[in-house]
Amino acid sequence: MEVDEVVCLPKLSRVAVCGGTHGNELSGVYLVRELVKVDKKAVEKKAEEEEPASVLMVLSNPRAIQQGQRYVDTDLNRCFTHAILNGPMLDTAPYEMIRSRELNGMLGPKGSPEAVDLVCDLHNTTANMGLCLIAYSDCDWICLHIFRHLQRQMSGIPLRYIHFDVSNKESYSLDSVGKHGFAMEIGAQPHSVVRSNIYTAMKLGVQHMLDWVRSFNSGRIFEGGFVDVFTMVKHIDYPRDSETQNITAAIHPQLQDRDFCLLHPGDPLFQTFSGETLTYKGHQPLYPFFINECAYYEKGIALSLARRKRVMVPAIRVQTEQEQRANEPRYTSEEEE
Amino acid sequence: MEVDEVVCLPKLSRVAVCGGTHGNELSGVYLVRELVKVDKKAVEKKAEEEEPASVLMVLSNPRAIQQGQRYVDTDLNRCFTHAILNGPMLDTAPYEMIRSRELNGMLGPKGSPEAVDLVCDLHNTTANMGLCLIAYSDCDWICLHIFRHLQRQMSGIPLRYIHFDVSNKESYSLDSVGKHGFAMEIGAQPHSVVRSNIYTAMKLGVQHMLDWVRSFNSGRIFEGGFVDVFTMVKHIDYPRDSETQNITAAIHPQLQDRDFCLLHPGDPLFQTFSGETLTYKGHQPLYPFFINECAYYEKGIALSLARRKRVMVPAIRVQTEQEQRANEPRYTSEEEE
Repeated sequence: MEVDEVVCLPKLSRVAVCGGTHGNELSGVYLVRELVKVDKKAVEKKAEEEEPASVLMVLSNPRAIQQGQRYVDTDLNRCFTHAILNGPMLDTAPYEMIRSRELNGMLGPKGSPEAVDLVCDLHNTTANMGLCLIAYSDCDWICLHIFRHLQRQMSGIPLRYIHFDVSNKESYSLDSVGKHGFAMEIGAQPHSVVRSNIYTAMKLGVQHMLDWVRSFNSGRIFEGGFVDVFTMVKHIDYPRDSETQNITAAIHPQLQDRDFCLLHPGDPLFQTFSGETLTYKGHQPLYPFFINECAYYEKGIALSLARRKRVMVPAIRVQTEQEQRANEPRYTSEEEE
Repeated sequence: MEVDEVVCLPKLSRVAVCGGTHGNELSGVYLVRELVKVDKKAVEKKAEEEEPASVLMVLSNPRAIQQGQRYVDTDLNRCFTHAILNGPMLDTAPYEMIRSRELNGMLGPKGSPEAVDLVCDLHNTTANMGLCLIAYSDCDWICLHIFRHLQRQMSGIPLRYIHFDVSNKESYSLDSVGKHGFAMEIGAQPHSVVRSNIYTAMKLGVQHMLDWVRSFNSGRIFEGGFVDVFTMVKHIDYPRDSETQNITAAIHPQLQDRDFCLLHPGDPLFQTFSGETLTYKGHQPLYPFFINECAYYEKGIALSLARRKRVMVPAIRVQTEQEQRANEPRYTSEEEE
């Protein structure tokens, strides 16, 4: 790819904004409800004609939202692997496994040409992570350009791009159902609580994302540039009692709330309940994130560690209708030819 | 009462430190477990002979702790009223109503001479309240002297004394079972999360409290002085949709985390999800606390408001054995005389 090349990508005709995939992460729940309300008013005013993309608003886990819990039976946001979506389904299946198929029918099928073009799934964390886009790709130019747009537009909250290096087949979260997709993760906010500043940051993030999609669809060229990408390397669990499995230490006060501040070998990691400091035994400095996320105690994750790299993102523009027709798959099988 | 008078009070022979009354308020859960471990070691060393008071460590709601929830069926810390503890008990009673009777048997009976002398019940809040002692009395010199001791000993965390003006009969929380009692409430900490700084503050608070009890029991005179007491005046609920009862606004960002900062009429109170500011319509300035406490959404409390007053606390000392015998009820009925 040459430096001045402009990559041409298909139009983003259908976008989904999802909240309440975890029922106790409330910014997304209240934001989706608010967007639905605003959308209804817009439809009443017939202003929807101005919209160059259809935006689908989804409350992903209504039962969990109603119960004010992360999930009812199992974590919905781990139910979108190829295996779970396509395996046999028993009558006794957990609610979330049934719901993930419904959502796959609505927004997917995952990996098919019918899937929505972009899924933005709204999440909160108790970790002090600011606003993060979390994606399975470090070369999805749509996601990376949206991230760059948010960086330019939003001040007052730090922004990062996190990359989980997992194949599309093994990818497990709702956003993996779209052709492009990411989780928009914002914290720190306790679960089952709404903080105005976090809600407003999410609202702005979604508005700027949708503005960018409209702008992209209308034919604007977006210049290339660099993005710092944090690729997840490993998770670290809490020290635990070998008998009871209860944790025996908390995140060290010198590490707490310091997401994305480089952690060096020998730095304080945990403080035991008796007051002892345990240090980071790794051999290389890495960037900690999801430090002390509430929902990850049960997953055995006290924090995650990432490597930072700089990714060159090319200039992009939407394909013209002619280009899009030329690039469309023709659905002719070899047998027919 | 003359200024120089020293009030003589009975010895505090039996103290209870309770954690996990709410199963997802984790500082108390891990602190009680730690104290039990330390206590066991002390017993092994036969160091318990040095202890001038027996300290009972209690995990109040083991089922809720196991489930990582505030409660199983109903809020345990509302189950210690005279009516609930002494009313008829059905087989189908909520778990917490059964458990409150067990605890009343263990630490009470509430209001009787057999009750433990002091109950310290450990709590966390998502509100930015620092360390608060919450009691039903503004003239319990034991509680107020303990508070003064913590004020002198602890730095780095703000300390306040909150008074809920409720009669002993109607008082509903676990700490009301003791002859003296208070909740030690520390925040901000998300529920189901342990933050080292909050855990350490609670540990120090309990250690200083027990130090004070030992010192009091050993005969030391504690000088009098003033304490600022915040007496709860009223609660304010979130604005809600009249149909769904869903909240339509969050605490205003200018009020969030500003517990105990005087709120004046006209000050921002809420920010609606559409972005509108709603102001405080009260007629007098009051002190907000429990701002955006997670567990109070379901109770219809967005924040509580208090009036501040200065209370003169007299000097106190423990009664001598002779004084104590002289003051003991003789349990002779009029009929016998």
